[in-house]
Amino acid sequence: MIFIGERINAGFKEIKEAIINKDGSVIRESARKQADAGANYLDVCLGTASANVEDLVWMIEQVQAEVDLPISIDNNKISMLQEAIPVCKRPPLVNSTTAVDEKLDSLLPLVAKYKASIIGLVMDETGSPKTADKRVEIGGKIFAKILEYDMSPEQLFLDPIIMPLKFMQEQSTEILGAASQFRLFSDPPCHIVGGLSNVSNGAVHKKIINRTFAVMLVANGLDAVIMDVLDTELVDAILTAELIMNKSIYADSYLEAFRK
Amino acid sequence: MIFIGERINAGFKEIKEAIINKDGSVIRESARKQADAGANYLDVCLGTASANVEDLVWMIEQVQAEVDLPISIDNNKISMLQEAIPVCKRPPLVNSTTAVDEKLDSLLPLVAKYKASIIGLVMDETGSPKTADKRVEIGGKIFAKILEYDMSPEQLFLDPIIMPLKFMQEQSTEILGAASQFRLFSDPPCHIVGGLSNVSNGAVHKKIINRTFAVMLVANGLDAVIMDVLDTELVDAILTAELIMNKSIYADSYLEAFRK
Repeated sequence: MIFIGERINAGFKEIKEAIINKDGSVIRESARKQADAGANYLDVCLGTASANVEDLVWMIEQVQAEVDLPISIDNNKISMLQEAIPVCKRPPLVNSTTAVDEKLDSLLPLVAKYKASIIGLVMDETGSPKTADKRVEIGGKIFAKILEYDMSPEQLFLDPIIMPLKFMQEQSTEILGAASQFRLFSDPPCHIVGGLSNVSNGAVHKKIINRTFAVMLVANGLDAVIMDVLDTELVDAILTAELIMNKSIYADSYLEAFRK
Repeated sequence: MIFIGERINAGFKEIKEAIINKDGSVIRESARKQADAGANYLDVCLGTASANVEDLVWMIEQVQAEVDLPISIDNNKISMLQEAIPVCKRPPLVNSTTAVDEKLDSLLPLVAKYKASIIGLVMDETGSPKTADKRVEIGGKIFAKILEYDMSPEQLFLDPIIMPLKFMQEQSTEILGAASQFRLFSDPPCHIVGGLSNVSNGAVHKKIINRTFAVMLVANGLDAVIMDVLDTELVDAILTAELIMNKSIYADSYLEAFRK
């Protein structure tokens, strides 16, 4: 599993304040904690704290001063990415593009140039799809586009768009069905990613809903996830799901081994 | 979910002693606890404690004196079942038959006569199957047999035979694949059941393996399970999996509602 840590996001109050006050220690501490918990990428999101690329670059620099992990740049503006991507020491993940042609044709040349990766949300001009088939159709369009720009399937993280269970209960099976079909686009396949916490948006029992849906997603091919890597029970559930799917080799101490 | 409580089994020391000492209070207490935890059937197993049908009948009577739940008779001997089934106040579940013709032709007339149900293990003279396809083939044979005896699909609980992850790691996806195909035999389908704890046989992290595999099984159509209903985290995982699969209607308090 490619764990993408979600905590360096101005949606969290302490991160927003850190950005405004230029208090790098808060960013660095979060980076360290998430790295220690097993994160493979760290997502960095300015949110509403700032619209200045200098602030985004500053955040990336804080993270890179603390840990040796690639960055997931949570921004879809070409002007921001043009400045932020070159600052990344390791090829970053751009989070994200839709299937809208203008967006793809603007972002993909930049992503390709830096051998970065990109999250492709399966939505287009008409909005978010309601069915598995429509998700696959839009995913296929994004997949074809990255090949046009000479990117490899491994540089694409397709996101079936996880919807809140509370408000769109019938969507979960469509999302699982789409994920299982994304795998069939190529061999080796592109990555399949999701913003997990969306599923429990508005729910009371958020954590158990997150980890239960995560297990089902793993069974349907998800191999990357944007989530709270500090949620140990969630990490354990995902490690166990991968063990059951024979993606890792059984050892009695498979959970302890991950912590080392 | 049809929860089949597994605790009244002579494999547990206190139950074995209760059978030998004819201490009904131990049996009744276990029945009450499992019923309170949400069991829909209570499995009753003599194991190696006794081979006398009088003891099996006594166990069933103890359970029925305490709770109003149907019994899962964990015995496959026709001579035992001929005595035990008529004692059951509600149509019992016979646990279990294989796909061997002699066994089916001996047990099914009795099951049909009492409008009982039966667990069909997808194994035959050649042993346990290794692939999903072979499981489906054997399941299809059992399914055809119950129709011959004028039983309805709802009277059959097909069991894909859960194997230990530790020793047969590649089997889990075959089991999941088989379960998802059992659903297609008829509409409405037969029940799909599993002896869940087998998956964690020999493992160190038994509970998380049990509940993670349970979630995947629910996503593949499992609607009945033989398990420890006193494991609250396992019950919660299954209830959440059914919510995600849209088998129950979302409510913020879906876990609390089950406890009432």
